[in-house]
Amino acid sequence: MAEQKIPYKIYLSEDEIPKQWYNVRADMKTKPAPLLNPATLEPMTFDDLRPVFCDELVKQELDDDTAYIDIPLDIQDFYRMYRPAPLVRAYCLEKKLQTPAKIYYKFEGNNTSGSHKLNSAIAQAYYAKKQGLKGVTTETGAGQWGTALSMACSYFDLDCKVYMVKVSYEQKPFRREVMRTYGASVTPSPSDTTNVGRQILERYPGTTGSLGCAISEAVEVATTNEGYRYVLGSVLNQVLLHQSVIGLETKAAMDKYNITPDIIIGCAGGGSNLGGLISPFMGEKLRGEKNYDIIAVEPASCPSFTRGKYAYDFCDTGMVCPLAKMYTLGSGFIPSANHAGGLRFHGMSSTLSQLYHDGYMRAVSVEQTSVFEAAEQFARVEGILPAPESSHAIRVAIDEALKCKETGEEKTILFGLTGTGYFDLVAYQKFNDGEMSDYIPTDEELQKSFDSLPKVDK
Amino acid sequence: MAEQKIPYKIYLSEDEIPKQWYNVRADMKTKPAPLLNPATLEPMTFDDLRPVFCDELVKQELDDDTAYIDIPLDIQDFYRMYRPAPLVRAYCLEKKLQTPAKIYYKFEGNNTSGSHKLNSAIAQAYYAKKQGLKGVTTETGAGQWGTALSMACSYFDLDCKVYMVKVSYEQKPFRREVMRTYGASVTPSPSDTTNVGRQILERYPGTTGSLGCAISEAVEVATTNEGYRYVLGSVLNQVLLHQSVIGLETKAAMDKYNITPDIIIGCAGGGSNLGGLISPFMGEKLRGEKNYDIIAVEPASCPSFTRGKYAYDFCDTGMVCPLAKMYTLGSGFIPSANHAGGLRFHGMSSTLSQLYHDGYMRAVSVEQTSVFEAAEQFARVEGILPAPESSHAIRVAIDEALKCKETGEEKTILFGLTGTGYFDLVAYQKFNDGEMSDYIPTDEELQKSFDSLPKVDK
Repeated sequence: MAEQKIPYKIYLSEDEIPKQWYNVRADMKTKPAPLLNPATLEPMTFDDLRPVFCDELVKQELDDDTAYIDIPLDIQDFYRMYRPAPLVRAYCLEKKLQTPAKIYYKFEGNNTSGSHKLNSAIAQAYYAKKQGLKGVTTETGAGQWGTALSMACSYFDLDCKVYMVKVSYEQKPFRREVMRTYGASVTPSPSDTTNVGRQILERYPGTTGSLGCAISEAVEVATTNEGYRYVLGSVLNQVLLHQSVIGLETKAAMDKYNITPDIIIGCAGGGSNLGGLISPFMGEKLRGEKNYDIIAVEPASCPSFTRGKYAYDFCDTGMVCPLAKMYTLGSGFIPSANHAGGLRFHGMSSTLSQLYHDGYMRAVSVEQTSVFEAAEQFARVEGILPAPESSHAIRVAIDEALKCKETGEEKTILFGLTGTGYFDLVAYQKFNDGEMSDYIPTDEELQKSFDSLPKVDK
Repeated sequence: MAEQKIPYKIYLSEDEIPKQWYNVRADMKTKPAPLLNPATLEPMTFDDLRPVFCDELVKQELDDDTAYIDIPLDIQDFYRMYRPAPLVRAYCLEKKLQTPAKIYYKFEGNNTSGSHKLNSAIAQAYYAKKQGLKGVTTETGAGQWGTALSMACSYFDLDCKVYMVKVSYEQKPFRREVMRTYGASVTPSPSDTTNVGRQILERYPGTTGSLGCAISEAVEVATTNEGYRYVLGSVLNQVLLHQSVIGLETKAAMDKYNITPDIIIGCAGGGSNLGGLISPFMGEKLRGEKNYDIIAVEPASCPSFTRGKYAYDFCDTGMVCPLAKMYTLGSGFIPSANHAGGLRFHGMSSTLSQLYHDGYMRAVSVEQTSVFEAAEQFARVEGILPAPESSHAIRVAIDEALKCKETGEEKTILFGLTGTGYFDLVAYQKFNDGEMSDYIPTDEELQKSFDSLPKVDK
């Protein structure tokens, strides 16, 4: 064939799954600001971090220089169970929109955890196993990360203790059961199994919990039990490193068919998906080799990039974790109760924050009813029920494709479809019943939250 | 490479997706017994069936001679959205079992309906559209078929009316919401929207419904509304024909790597998955070209092959549908309430029944706690949470692999992984909590059910 027809789904062969992760920090002229010790306000050192994280992960967290890091063979083996993930040409969506744009999405939902989180979970579990640990602890809100981690720990026969925000524990029993099926112990947080949990229960009897509280419990258990470490599913440098497999695979698939994206779109909560998807493209942009229009999409109800401050802040509401410099809404910010799905973290990965600050990407915020409209439109023609998180990216991809329809431009649009919405049907039901509403925090609300930012002169 | 390494997942290219379905009846010396008109006990004719089914589907239903039937291009396009489905080498399971056996599974769960049902749903929706119909009606129990059909109808802009057994409608709101998201109208059955529904509600106030009742309602709506037809997701010849795409793809993938299965295993309720998976292999066996050990796996609580009678029976409890000759437990048989998942139909596809009767395949029945044990074992090493239905096949695949461990035989085992268990977590929860039990109907219970078989001298 003279002209190469692009298939609906581009699958790399297993040999083509990346064998190295790419560390975008190596190509950044201005490195992301370091984590600070909350007691001394000095940069966290290897020794500061090793009681909390595995040694090898601390090294990755602190390494701003090594561009490529080998993916251990055991992780490569595991990746073969669910990777390569398909890069899909959205022919049916293009046709529906009658757009000259070419739309591609990288689909990371084809595994039981239902999202890209597994890419980092397996890496973190591997290093814990390699260090001879007994197990790991973590928190989970909606449950994607907890599920991914329980799958990874099951594979390596590691104990997995998940602190699940109590309201989710009760409202998402199915997520909980998947984790239990993979052998994890799941404790509703706050619980009476930790000091911090007991204190919170005493102070706020009947509380339904928060992610910040669950983090504090998980960290306490990890640091007070021999042979345990704490693991986190987003925000951290190490997580973005592991997630670079998304972007590397995407780029390899595109290169194979001589496709160059004009626009790259990802949803952004803590930044793990966006950071992973864009990493090799951002590398080219940082090195001045290529230019891409890179767009972070966040919910209007939790707008850390578009309305947050670039400042040092706590990563958790319990204020036990190190300080990170990031676009933040303040560690006390909690999105309105009507906010569906994830993307509810108050801050954004330090790496992405620096890149955004330096003008290498832009951000837009979208309201949730328009997000679910896009989700429904996508589901009906592309056959995948998308996660609410991913649907933020779909919304903007559709908007950009419709702009092309206006202008006649044949732009190539790439977005990340991070996962499926099988465990988010309460939100879909609200949408189907016309009971979903939008919420945008007022300037006054945000200002009040900013007032709680720690005073750090860096 | 001298030796060809088998990848974890064998994906055909999109060009290699089958372009024709295979009709196994063409190679059967003894054809399956025809459907009978319940009034006259004469074989159903084209004219008898066309008020209920689309014309083209009636032709397929009655065609015992044409071996290969072209898959229309629109259906091929749709197939490209979620096919080819991967053929997976279960390396991790083999390692866990320490078996010399080689285990493969064809995974049909990588689409939002979560099962293989979509293969026939899209075909039935296509022919309805082609005939210029407004829409189709159907029943659904657990919801896999209803979900698949709503996706297919959404793609072709067809109206889709689903009658969902009331108890499932209430207990599986998530399934219901997926269907609604794809634009289907979902009515709990029995309902006051049909004569038969109103009669049943009058006779049994407060009933939670049954599949038989939902079928009767769906058939009534299809036959009394201009521009509607009824569609069914299993049992029928046409459904097995469409599902042959599973087996054809599997065989193409195996041939590509010179793999020949010794044992082929599928779960069997109405027979759509098993019939599809085995079809080209059965064809070879019927033509005397190859021999395979083909195993149908059914629940011990609904053992139509292993303990049923081979006789003419009604397909529905309402006794409005044609009579089919099949292995049956009697149309009044309802599996115990503790039975989880699907595979609860009282009869088995006429085609498979004839093949079983003629000794071309064997059947085993398994108890549900051992099925969930297999499901959990599989999930933990292969990373996919299987549907309870598929887990019946997993159980027997593991048993066969363990036999190989005993004997040292390096058999190649193929099984069908029909779908995922994301909407079956109530059953998983029971299993995780140790509250799942087994049930085997007594001979007396079965005999009582057999007494209701219609007296047909054929």
